[in-house]
Amino acid sequence: MAVYTEVGEDELDAFVAGYDIGAVRACKGIAEGVENSNFLLHTDAGYFILTLYEKRVDPADLPFFIGLMEHLSARGISCPTPVKTRAGTALGTLAGRPAAIVTFLDGMSVRRPSPRHLSELGRGLAEMHVAGDGFAPTRRNALSVAGWRPLFAQSAARADEVAPGLGPEIAAELDFLEANWPANLPQGVIHADLFPDNVFFLRDDLSGIIDFYFACNDALAYDVAVCLNAWCFEPDLSFNITKARAMLAAYERVRPFTDAEFAALPLLARGAAMRFLLTRLHDWLRVPEGALVRPKDPNEYLRKLRFHRTVETSGAYGLDR
Amino acid sequence: MAVYTEVGEDELDAFVAGYDIGAVRACKGIAEGVENSNFLLHTDAGYFILTLYEKRVDPADLPFFIGLMEHLSARGISCPTPVKTRAGTALGTLAGRPAAIVTFLDGMSVRRPSPRHLSELGRGLAEMHVAGDGFAPTRRNALSVAGWRPLFAQSAARADEVAPGLGPEIAAELDFLEANWPANLPQGVIHADLFPDNVFFLRDDLSGIIDFYFACNDALAYDVAVCLNAWCFEPDLSFNITKARAMLAAYERVRPFTDAEFAALPLLARGAAMRFLLTRLHDWLRVPEGALVRPKDPNEYLRKLRFHRTVETSGAYGLDR
Repeated sequence: MAVYTEVGEDELDAFVAGYDIGAVRACKGIAEGVENSNFLLHTDAGYFILTLYEKRVDPADLPFFIGLMEHLSARGISCPTPVKTRAGTALGTLAGRPAAIVTFLDGMSVRRPSPRHLSELGRGLAEMHVAGDGFAPTRRNALSVAGWRPLFAQSAARADEVAPGLGPEIAAELDFLEANWPANLPQGVIHADLFPDNVFFLRDDLSGIIDFYFACNDALAYDVAVCLNAWCFEPDLSFNITKARAMLAAYERVRPFTDAEFAALPLLARGAAMRFLLTRLHDWLRVPEGALVRPKDPNEYLRKLRFHRTVETSGAYGLDR
Repeated sequence: MAVYTEVGEDELDAFVAGYDIGAVRACKGIAEGVENSNFLLHTDAGYFILTLYEKRVDPADLPFFIGLMEHLSARGISCPTPVKTRAGTALGTLAGRPAAIVTFLDGMSVRRPSPRHLSELGRGLAEMHVAGDGFAPTRRNALSVAGWRPLFAQSAARADEVAPGLGPEIAAELDFLEANWPANLPQGVIHADLFPDNVFFLRDDLSGIIDFYFACNDALAYDVAVCLNAWCFEPDLSFNITKARAMLAAYERVRPFTDAEFAALPLLARGAAMRFLLTRLHDWLRVPEGALVRPKDPNEYLRKLRFHRTVETSGAYGLDR
């Protein structure tokens, strides 16, 4: 849950007056997003989400994120649509922070996704990849292979506090990933953080994708690899091939994988597991003394990484060729 | 902000199916209320607030609170209206907790109330007191004069950690309040916690009163005394007689004070200051090690209490007679 900034009624009224959405009727902080402050905003024109971008988001990246949501929603992807001011801008300033108003998206994230949800996810992800084509701005993936070793360096000395031998295991894995990371896969705009929290469903149908604040340019199949990690393991960390198969088959009905992607998927899945292992390790070792929120356990992604190391071909993910 | 309990989509769908409000479209945790978990619930029929009652609320009190909201809204008071299931009940169970759905109330609390807001508050409070007449269930005010000494006993030994001499000062004040507390004032249903957080405004007009979870039967003028404390001091803790006068005059236009109330108001204001001083002192001395949320400073109410001790008649609050 996240509301880091209080907004005064006068400054809110003045901010909303710049838009063509009538007057403010209500504004309530909501528990959505981890990096930013989000509010449900009710105006004469309906319900919206007001986001204040907090310090973990680089303001220089905001035009990319906002522009991407505009681009995708104009192409029929159900994602928050930035509302523009009368002056035609979608990014303003409120309470001293960059701020935007986006449309309210119905639906809820699922805690226990079914194969049906996975099929919807695969279709939605592929449609988003196709729709991203033609979006001109670019943003580098700072959390891809080149970023992992510097990130690991910040935690290496204390990695063994999390699991004995974790430091050497990560170092060896990084050697392998850096030496073998595929360079020539189809590129595009990826979400890069498509966890269940960020996908809404209405009953069994995907109704929306949110939280584009890690979006960047990278191999499209890497986004699929993130989803294999985030959606296809059971709570006991066993891999559910039925769910993976449902997702990958639905993806391919919209955008078939190239041979190179088919071959690279196990490696990309190892890399995606490494990315979340490293960020979790980083956060785990830096818990503020007595914090109320316990960070997520890095061991979950260590175990997922080890699973992907046992995978020889994408057939193990249910992808037939 | 408060969302203590996660609600699964299946149990939510089943819960909402008991009501005549269509299917769930969205459900988001909101930062409102301190004691309970609150969600913005969007269904085919519109927007609602879903509340899950957490452990600080006694389930035995819930029929009183829910019944009171029904009673008041049936009499035109703008407060959350409990929605009934097809079976005619307004209180159910969700995620193992008592739960209720109430109407969504427009408006926002104000951080810096103006005399105009105070006038609205006074009118709204008096209208609520009048509307409460005829509500049959009763609930004792556990946080009135009889409850203060047992509450103080839990903190007395450590009171001096907050301010030197605080323990003896409170003990002497309790002696005085217990000896002089007025017994024969007009009684009724009071809100008992009508802080700015719990009153919504649309522009300058009061649009709703929320959070009835301290409501009880007590002297009506005690509610006014709570508002004198909660609304009529500036951030530097100076008393603003212009605001107090605006509130009291507006109250009297709906429900004039009796002579006994006029005479008792300074004492009631001391008592109300004592009530919040004691609960804040209690919470201040019991902060969990390293908690992220700092409790509110008891010294604020010590200073308000001292101010009310200097007041000889209600004329000092701008109430003319």
